[in-house]
Amino acid sequence: MNKLETALIACADRVTDSLRECLTAEDPTCEPLFEAMRYSALSAGKRIRPYLTVEFCRLFGGREEAAMPFACAVEMIHNYSLIHDDLPCMDNDDFRRGKPTNHKVYGETTALLAGDTLLTQAFATCASNAYVSPASVQHAVAYLAKAAGGVGMAGGQMIDTAADGKLNTREALEHMYRLKTGALIAAASVLGVYAATDAPTAEMLKDTETFSYNVGLAFQFMDDVLDVTADAEEFGRPTGSDDKNQKTTILSFLTMEDTLARVRSLTEEAVAIISKYPDSENLISLANYLVTRRK
Amino acid sequence: MNKLETALIACADRVTDSLRECLTAEDPTCEPLFEAMRYSALSAGKRIRPYLTVEFCRLFGGREEAAMPFACAVEMIHNYSLIHDDLPCMDNDDFRRGKPTNHKVYGETTALLAGDTLLTQAFATCASNAYVSPASVQHAVAYLAKAAGGVGMAGGQMIDTAADGKLNTREALEHMYRLKTGALIAAASVLGVYAATDAPTAEMLKDTETFSYNVGLAFQFMDDVLDVTADAEEFGRPTGSDDKNQKTTILSFLTMEDTLARVRSLTEEAVAIISKYPDSENLISLANYLVTRRK
Repeated sequence: MNKLETALIACADRVTDSLRECLTAEDPTCEPLFEAMRYSALSAGKRIRPYLTVEFCRLFGGREEAAMPFACAVEMIHNYSLIHDDLPCMDNDDFRRGKPTNHKVYGETTALLAGDTLLTQAFATCASNAYVSPASVQHAVAYLAKAAGGVGMAGGQMIDTAADGKLNTREALEHMYRLKTGALIAAASVLGVYAATDAPTAEMLKDTETFSYNVGLAFQFMDDVLDVTADAEEFGRPTGSDDKNQKTTILSFLTMEDTLARVRSLTEEAVAIISKYPDSENLISLANYLVTRRK
Repeated sequence: MNKLETALIACADRVTDSLRECLTAEDPTCEPLFEAMRYSALSAGKRIRPYLTVEFCRLFGGREEAAMPFACAVEMIHNYSLIHDDLPCMDNDDFRRGKPTNHKVYGETTALLAGDTLLTQAFATCASNAYVSPASVQHAVAYLAKAAGGVGMAGGQMIDTAADGKLNTREALEHMYRLKTGALIAAASVLGVYAATDAPTAEMLKDTETFSYNVGLAFQFMDDVLDVTADAEEFGRPTGSDDKNQKTTILSFLTMEDTLARVRSLTEEAVAIISKYPDSENLISLANYLVTRRK
């Protein structure tokens, strides 16, 4: 295992511990709902988003304990979106990360409420951050809510489902990707900045956003590539599904060669931007890792 | 129409105008989702919760413009909960406020996303309050998220649905009512306090909570009473449904006479607590109005 993978796993473990604390009911009569929330939120995931929060906080001189509540909030929102996306009225998926989906275990009603409540608790967790100023909390809540909301992740999901996965232009596809996955990845990073300071410069924010949207888009393009080229077992889920579902992907508009070139240029631009900051090796490793992965 | 009803309607109109502004997509590609959100959030409701926010803000010397973003946030959360409660996997209702429910008009997928997004935008709206300090925003977000979350409204909903509306003791029923409806009513009032000041005394908060939980519980008991006694047409929805569904209500544990006595004593206690503050006539009128209503 290389240095980055070791760091990712160690960070994921601390995030899981922290999430477990956030997701314990202080009122025992509410425990069944929290059990369903924990089932999804504590199950193994790469925890890329919280890693971004922690690393951007560190990049700008903040401590991990200040980043952790924001990191957990972003991860809760990621997990709420997965629970709701898996519901019968959305993608109707039976498995996620090799386990039965939330509604398969707890039923649709509880899964709906578990998703709702993870989203709600994310903001409670943001607001409970005792290591940052009230101004940082206000910025973090505003940014996260916008990124997860109607002109962010949920808006992207709406565009994708309304179009039934079929988008007419490359611009429309990239716009949907920016909203559906890019916005929350950017929020993960920007909340790390706010964990470090409540008065970031415009340049810090712009660099953080550009890095994150580039990495997010490259990641998404690689997903499209791997759906065609990867070995299903290694990839961890069935491949060829985009083609089978006649889903628009970047490969509907670009050749494989051009797509891989675009992935490289997005990543190179991200690395160039972040390289001007000292202590950016971990973020550079992450950007490179995400586009060389095989799953 | 009496003075309170006139004030309620005028406040409801200002809240609706404000909600319309909050629920306009800055990105036109996301407009279909915002349309579904507006369909529910802008449809006529009593707007009791935002009225509490505005009146508690005024009670403690704040201005309505400082209360309005918090009032809208609470109302968005109330409306998200109605959209999700009406879904087929929850109560499966076709009508709400005399109109087809959200999923009947837009389909389940959009209704799910519209509810999710109203909940998310509520926190964006809280954090956008430019008339209060960052400390007030932090308190408001923390209180609202807890009240709407797993040990608040969503927790109460979970208890209610898990028990299929059947609770064994009066204590269990009252606990469920406190979570399911009381917590958000208390949040509406407490956010009004935070709109007026970022450093309320413990007494101010305690009085505000006691008033709100009392009024909320009395309101809920009156709902149980009206389900038995009201004229369906005047009540605005079918009556006798609790009995038909074998749902536990306060009348499962108390006689009609004792229930009405309890409603009176809860209201009297609420009025007594709030009367010590000058300028509390509107809140006193509201407390009395909610338990003398016929619908």
